[in-house]
Amino acid sequence: MRALERQAMQPIMTIGDIHDFLDREFPQIHADGRMLVVTDIGPGRLTMRFAPNERHLRPGNTISGPSMVMLADVAAYAVILAHVGPVALAVTTSLNINFLRKPKLAPLSCECRILKLGKRLAVIDILLMQENAEGPAAQATATYSIPPR
Amino acid sequence: MRALERQAMQPIMTIGDIHDFLDREFPQIHADGRMLVVTDIGPGRLTMRFAPNERHLRPGNTISGPSMVMLADVAAYAVILAHVGPVALAVTTSLNINFLRKPKLAPLSCECRILKLGKRLAVIDILLMQENAEGPAAQATATYSIPPR
Amino acid sequence: MRALERQAMQPIMTIGDIHDFLDREFPQIHADGRMLVVTDIGPGRLTMRFAPNERHLRPGNTISGPSMVMLADVAAYAVILAHVGPVALAVTTSLNINFLRKPKLAPLSCECRILKLGKRLAVIDILLMQENAEGPAAQATATYSIPPR
Amino acid sequence: MRALERQAMQPIMTIGDIHDFLDREFPQIHADGRMLVVTDIGPGRLTMRFAPNERHLRPGNTISGPSMVMLADVAAYAVILAHVGPVALAVTTSLNINFLRKPKLAPLSCECRILKLGKRLAVIDILLMQENAEGPAAQATATYSIPPR
Repeated sequence: MRALERQAMQPIMTIGDIHDFLDREFPQIHADGRMLVVTDIGPGRLTMRFAPNERHLRPGNTISGPSMVMLADVAAYAVILAHVGPVALAVTTSLNINFLRKPKLAPLSCECRILKLGKRLAVIDILLMQENAEGPAAQATATYSIPPR
Repeated sequence: MRALERQAMQPIMTIGDIHDFLDREFPQIHADGRMLVVTDIGPGRLTMRFAPNERHLRPGNTISGPSMVMLADVAAYAVILAHVGPVALAVTTSLNINFLRKPKLAPLSCECRILKLGKRLAVIDILLMQENAEGPAAQATATYSIPPR
Repeated sequence: MRALERQAMQPIMTIGDIHDFLDREFPQIHADGRMLVVTDIGPGRLTMRFAPNERHLRPGNTISGPSMVMLADVAAYAVILAHVGPVALAVTTSLNINFLRKPKLAPLSCECRILKLGKRLAVIDILLMQENAEGPAAQATATYSIPPR
Repeated sequence: MRALERQAMQPIMTIGDIHDFLDREFPQIHADGRMLVVTDIGPGRLTMRFAPNERHLRPGNTISGPSMVMLADVAAYAVILAHVGPVALAVTTSLNINFLRKPKLAPLSCECRILKLGKRLAVIDILLMQENAEGPAAQATATYSIPPR
């Protein structure tokens, strides 16, 4: 994905830094095993991979909507974290998701792009995709409140 | 909540019918114990109660956003089911949620109201509330595609 | 509509105050004549009436979507104004609207309800209705950033 | 923008075809002069340029939110039209918009991308941008109901 900010933002945390932070602060997201892995970080963007298990299954051998929301929310949180650093903790204030194509029970890739990183609000564009699919499984935007730094 | 449709819609399934249907078709939602219970059904509306556990916890002793989305989605699905019957299976096409106040790790009540129940689309208004809170924990709207009947 | 905040919020501006403020600060909304009138204010809520003209028409003798968004946005702005006073100027940060039933080219009533009025963000629930219709024409939620007071 | 559908969709109307159709079916959008021009069409995408006038002004010399919604809605409608042809008339069922940066009273470019073009629903991703700005003015997604073909 191309960067959307003219003065390209630079991430200040590595993939390892983000994994360490999430392990420490959000142990719950690994309650069923390590399902979420950051696979790429760049200016204004981050990609996370989700390996679903039986718990995320829905009739029709697909992944549940709330599991896709969980992936979108953790990945969007991570792209902000990567660009702001581990000091400020962003809080989700709203999320809008469009379910486009039923994914199979197979890994989902989540591409996040920063639309805005302001002093008080961050807005993230999110695309959920599966290999060999005809198009994205879901698209979302999420807004986060950034505490005073 | 008052009914929003002029010719008040009538539910055609009882609380017991809905519990039986969800148990049979969505056993996954009870993977961690029986957390979701329909407590009230009326014309164009339904209330579901969610008893969260450790798995739904987030730092600050609050309930995770994706858990609130799961509650909103299951309850909205149930209010459509109650009014359409167990034949047609609605599919979530989009969901918009505003997180308003951090809930405590205590039961959440989810009030759903049918805004529209058309031939192809249903739109549901959803309010998540906790006892003794100053206002709602979250508000959502969700859209469902209704298969041809 | 019932109040959603436990400690009912009290409006601090009258209908006349709000009309004066909008006339002075937003003369553009009356470019085609006085189309928007506040008809009611109460704790945490406000109702605005919109009298559409030819300019708001769409094929099928209905009101255009952007005209409904304009009504929702001005009315939601007005309910915040009524509770915060004319000092702070709220800025729309996001808006989600569901178009439910095509309205006729006749007056639309817009009921706004404050879901949250925080230090930094306000979230408003909005319902657009027409007399003798089977249900609401549209439902929206809008989020506003409140400047430091 | 890259195409999001694996089997790239092909537009079946030209820029001239779309202008003729909009002129004939939606004369209202030109009530204040020709403000909306399609500048580019490609597989799964379309760009529309909006030249605002005094009517679209808001305090602070910026473009009003409802004017941006109008642009997003007409452009998203046009990208569906371009790929489906002038037979079926799509109806907006929902729209979600994030206002990111206040635009100046200068032309806005609207880039639309088809996320899904199904038998019943189309979902469009929309980005509003201005030359020399630091990032997008707004991002939106809109859903359209496609009548039976």
